[in-house]
Amino acid sequence: MNCIFGVDIGGTKVKIGKFINDELIQKEEISTNKQNKGTYIIPEIINKINEMKTNEEIIGIGLGVPGPAVDGIVYGANNLGWGIVDIKSEIINEFPNIKVEVINDANAAALGEAKKTLKNEAKNMILVTLGTGIGGGIVINGQIFNGYNGSAGEIGHIKVEHGNKRKCTCGLYDCVECYSSAAGIEKTAREVMGKELSCKEIFDLAKNGNVEAMKVIDDAVDKLSIALASVANTINPEVILIGGGVSKAGEFLLKKIEDVFVKYAFHTVKNTKLKLASLGNDAGMYGCFYQIKGETND
Amino acid sequence: MNCIFGVDIGGTKVKIGKFINDELIQKEEISTNKQNKGTYIIPEIINKINEMKTNEEIIGIGLGVPGPAVDGIVYGANNLGWGIVDIKSEIINEFPNIKVEVINDANAAALGEAKKTLKNEAKNMILVTLGTGIGGGIVINGQIFNGYNGSAGEIGHIKVEHGNKRKCTCGLYDCVECYSSAAGIEKTAREVMGKELSCKEIFDLAKNGNVEAMKVIDDAVDKLSIALASVANTINPEVILIGGGVSKAGEFLLKKIEDVFVKYAFHTVKNTKLKLASLGNDAGMYGCFYQIKGETND
Repeated sequence: MNCIFGVDIGGTKVKIGKFINDELIQKEEISTNKQNKGTYIIPEIINKINEMKTNEEIIGIGLGVPGPAVDGIVYGANNLGWGIVDIKSEIINEFPNIKVEVINDANAAALGEAKKTLKNEAKNMILVTLGTGIGGGIVINGQIFNGYNGSAGEIGHIKVEHGNKRKCTCGLYDCVECYSSAAGIEKTAREVMGKELSCKEIFDLAKNGNVEAMKVIDDAVDKLSIALASVANTINPEVILIGGGVSKAGEFLLKKIEDVFVKYAFHTVKNTKLKLASLGNDAGMYGCFYQIKGETND
Repeated sequence: MNCIFGVDIGGTKVKIGKFINDELIQKEEISTNKQNKGTYIIPEIINKINEMKTNEEIIGIGLGVPGPAVDGIVYGANNLGWGIVDIKSEIINEFPNIKVEVINDANAAALGEAKKTLKNEAKNMILVTLGTGIGGGIVINGQIFNGYNGSAGEIGHIKVEHGNKRKCTCGLYDCVECYSSAAGIEKTAREVMGKELSCKEIFDLAKNGNVEAMKVIDDAVDKLSIALASVANTINPEVILIGGGVSKAGEFLLKKIEDVFVKYAFHTVKNTKLKLASLGNDAGMYGCFYQIKGETND
């Protein structure tokens, strides 16, 4: 029995999935131990994997990290307290002779959704993650597309408004993240409705016909659609998947994006399929699994 | 001696290049004969190739067309009067047992610039063509990137302004093409300077310190930089090449784009290299040549 571990290392939790013959059969979470510049994180992952493994042969461990990664080395992950860390060597030291892959977490999620949700049928796709911020990951021909220095898919920072109306956490102005992320939607609600509401509360009000809440959502969808049209005009993907916490608004949100996207997309890409992601917080684990599988079996 | 022909079929002219051992040794132009739904175009190209060839062995003919092309078939090229035309079969009929490749002209130009101007050293690049309109072609890992239905690189239709200020020929509003193409720059000059000036005249005035002309150019550069930043945030190319007639403004234009691009690009892609394309109207011929060469030698 071939056993692969997919490990999604986040700023607060590490999610560890055990895959046997392509099935996720067990998942565990541990807190991300950021003490001492995050030096305990990998040892604690190794301990947990040793607990989870029984007598199967481990053929590989894939790890997703919140930062750029090349050839097993992470080049800075602020959320973990990491500078440049060679995590592949740390893993190989404990588990010699297995495959180890280290990839960016947004790319891992995109690969997971491309392979599992889309069944590897879309040649080119992009996953847009609408969370506190907005991230993205691109898969081309079934493989993660990194770009020149691992920054492909940073679509949260596409400019969608003018006049320096909102400053983004990145330092730029009027990025789509300022308007269509959970934080952006909550900010618009404060402006339009004069109230402190959670993104979920705003969607619930809109779904129940509240006119002001609908206006807030429509603004977020309008700005998001401008960014998605830019992306579609550039890379002409077969599918754009919408994921992240905000996408829990489901078909209500998807339908709105579909309606507005075609208003901004060039005629040759209006037929881009828009779909909801399906793996939720497990997407990264799945992607790490598929990254190992792709390296060993394809 | 291996002989390859690169043929760039445009709406007014067809440019035919003869390449021997990687060198362009002869180029000829014929008028594009659009009579009778463009049915004479391919026969006339064949005649010209027969004139140009001496006793070398032709190993391939690459053709660039102003429309989408898949597997040697062109799916509509309005500028030529073409509907769906199987030009590969027409060529093979006259020259059996050679390689024939049919590619989109914007992609052909990008491949030509990537291989010749950048010496195939940039893993990922995009060519932005600033002409009457704005086009683009993407090269990833030394190969043309088509996207799902051949529409990747349609970056002229990225939205860069708000309020439906200008309607684009494509039917959308406020595409970068409305502002930063030659036609867009001339339109801005009419608005700002109240005069009918050519794009070249506007650049010449700006270079000589005319304040109003400088304002016109600065606006075009600002909008273009917003679009290029969107592209860079999405695909993180190593190099963005600036080509097309407007790029004849040279270093004056390039310097301005470099200054403004970093204002809009996400921090991880601010180091994207911006360069001038160098092949001018020969880029398409070169790309068609390299497309054959890539298929036969690589």
